[in-house]
Amino acid sequence: MDEYEVIKKIFRPLSFGNNLSLNLDDDVCFLPNRNQIILGTDSIVEGDHFEKNERNPSLIAKKLLRVNLSDLASKGVSPFGYTLNLSLPKKLNNRNLITWIKSFARGLKEDQKKYNIKLLGGDTVIINSNLILSLTLFGFKKKKIIKRSDAIINDDIYVTGNIGESGIGFKIVKKKLKLNKILNTYFLKKYKLPEPPVFFGNELFKFANSATDISDGLLADLNNINLSSKCGAKIFIDNIPFSNKTIKIIKDKKVSIDYLITCGEDYQIIFTSKKKNSKKILSYAKKKNIKITKIGEVIKKRKLIVLDNNNKELFFENLGFQHF
Amino acid sequence: MDEYEVIKKIFRPLSFGNNLSLNLDDDVCFLPNRNQIILGTDSIVEGDHFEKNERNPSLIAKKLLRVNLSDLASKGVSPFGYTLNLSLPKKLNNRNLITWIKSFARGLKEDQKKYNIKLLGGDTVIINSNLILSLTLFGFKKKKIIKRSDAIINDDIYVTGNIGESGIGFKIVKKKLKLNKILNTYFLKKYKLPEPPVFFGNELFKFANSATDISDGLLADLNNINLSSKCGAKIFIDNIPFSNKTIKIIKDKKVSIDYLITCGEDYQIIFTSKKKNSKKILSYAKKKNIKITKIGEVIKKRKLIVLDNNNKELFFENLGFQHF
Repeated sequence: MDEYEVIKKIFRPLSFGNNLSLNLDDDVCFLPNRNQIILGTDSIVEGDHFEKNERNPSLIAKKLLRVNLSDLASKGVSPFGYTLNLSLPKKLNNRNLITWIKSFARGLKEDQKKYNIKLLGGDTVIINSNLILSLTLFGFKKKKIIKRSDAIINDDIYVTGNIGESGIGFKIVKKKLKLNKILNTYFLKKYKLPEPPVFFGNELFKFANSATDISDGLLADLNNINLSSKCGAKIFIDNIPFSNKTIKIIKDKKVSIDYLITCGEDYQIIFTSKKKNSKKILSYAKKKNIKITKIGEVIKKRKLIVLDNNNKELFFENLGFQHF
Repeated sequence: MDEYEVIKKIFRPLSFGNNLSLNLDDDVCFLPNRNQIILGTDSIVEGDHFEKNERNPSLIAKKLLRVNLSDLASKGVSPFGYTLNLSLPKKLNNRNLITWIKSFARGLKEDQKKYNIKLLGGDTVIINSNLILSLTLFGFKKKKIIKRSDAIINDDIYVTGNIGESGIGFKIVKKKLKLNKILNTYFLKKYKLPEPPVFFGNELFKFANSATDISDGLLADLNNINLSSKCGAKIFIDNIPFSNKTIKIIKDKKVSIDYLITCGEDYQIIFTSKKKNSKKILSYAKKKNIKITKIGEVIKKRKLIVLDNNNKELFFENLGFQHF
């Protein structure tokens, strides 16, 4: 199977057809010509964002999509389509490459259905190193875009889901942590297959002044809101949401809270909202069965303050993952 | 300088500002909400599309932009902005990385001015191998999009510029060819700094039924038109445009014509046009001082036929670069 056939047989069924993608039979594609279009783009790298020599490429496809879905969800944008830039390693010979691509496309297909999105176009190169995959995700603006820069002093700070689970999975992948089989499987899945709150993202405009997703670490991403909004934040370490499984391994001293709130790749949403919305948010969360936790508030002083249960300030060397 | 400062100080001046790029201060960006938007995306890889350890990153930036400008030009699309996905190697330590990024951004800036485009957004990852750079270029539809699939039987086939010069430069980079200093410099520049006919692309709708740019090789890309349009092509080897410098080194038997028409990376446009446009095209080319050469015609038989000056058919093992 050569590139032409791969595109025609494997990727074309994932596309918008002739309408927008030109059947993936040309060098360009169309975007829909209605509504305001917003885009986000993110790359994932073998060995960092997914396990080296991962045997299940469909998981890689899903992670690539979900990392980008997380970005758009945190802005309240409703996704419709995406383009791919695949850098595939020479180390896969042709037969393995086709098998790899087929499994990868199967993962895309499943998540396309789950999230109601389609392939627009893309590009492939063969490289002499590990896999690097970029995706650009396009969506429509809903009522408003929730920016990182619009936090208001005295806003409450909320976070969706649980923190640190993907980071525990990453430690397991890197063989820096070993748990029992059940916990291993549980946390590995959190690292391999994030579940960004995409559907909640669609409703974010009802509550949020500002928001971002957690990719670099709870503290680092909250600090990005601070920097963009020219404000600070005070959060309470005891309010940070951890799953029962995480709490257990914290108690067993197998991971530190410091690590969990700086490790990143949670793909949950941090958002800030007027204090008066507090009841509305908590009843919404209960009704929709989404975990949303108030962890602190926006303050005037341009500083990220983390307090323990004695109101004592905690200090952190790094707030999260630094790209460089 | 950390990532935040790099974005703020180096990349923000290249962006649309708060209007579309949100000052590069968020995870998403806007597209203009008027006219039909078209996009193309292409990646370039160290060692393939540019020299390993290239000492002038601004050249890499320009090549990355121009490879993508070539795609849009060949579709008759008028570009306005782009997003970047940079995979930068760990081998550059922080200080070298910043120097590298600054020079890279200088190249972007110069070409932004030349082509009237701006940065919309992007993403950076650090990788444990060579540079891989992806760019997604956005443009507005003009009168029509010139597709690969709309060639009509009996159309004339034209090509802009000269063929094979970048391929000669590539041989020099790979130390498979050594010429005198003047020729070395001349051909290396053709490889490093393509000059896609972007302004001609804006007028392509006046003439062309179908078109594509030459990235994989004259024969391979012409064959793509054949495959998409379900037709064939007959071209005359003696009509293929080579520069005088190229003709000289063909005569010296330093490169073969076979190589030149299959090596790719010309970033010129192949297009097909009704026979009756022939005069109009040649007088347009003369007036605008653009080299446009008629090389053959579209035929019904689904085959790419290359004829020598005795009307004898020539055969080729490969039509051009195969991605896999």
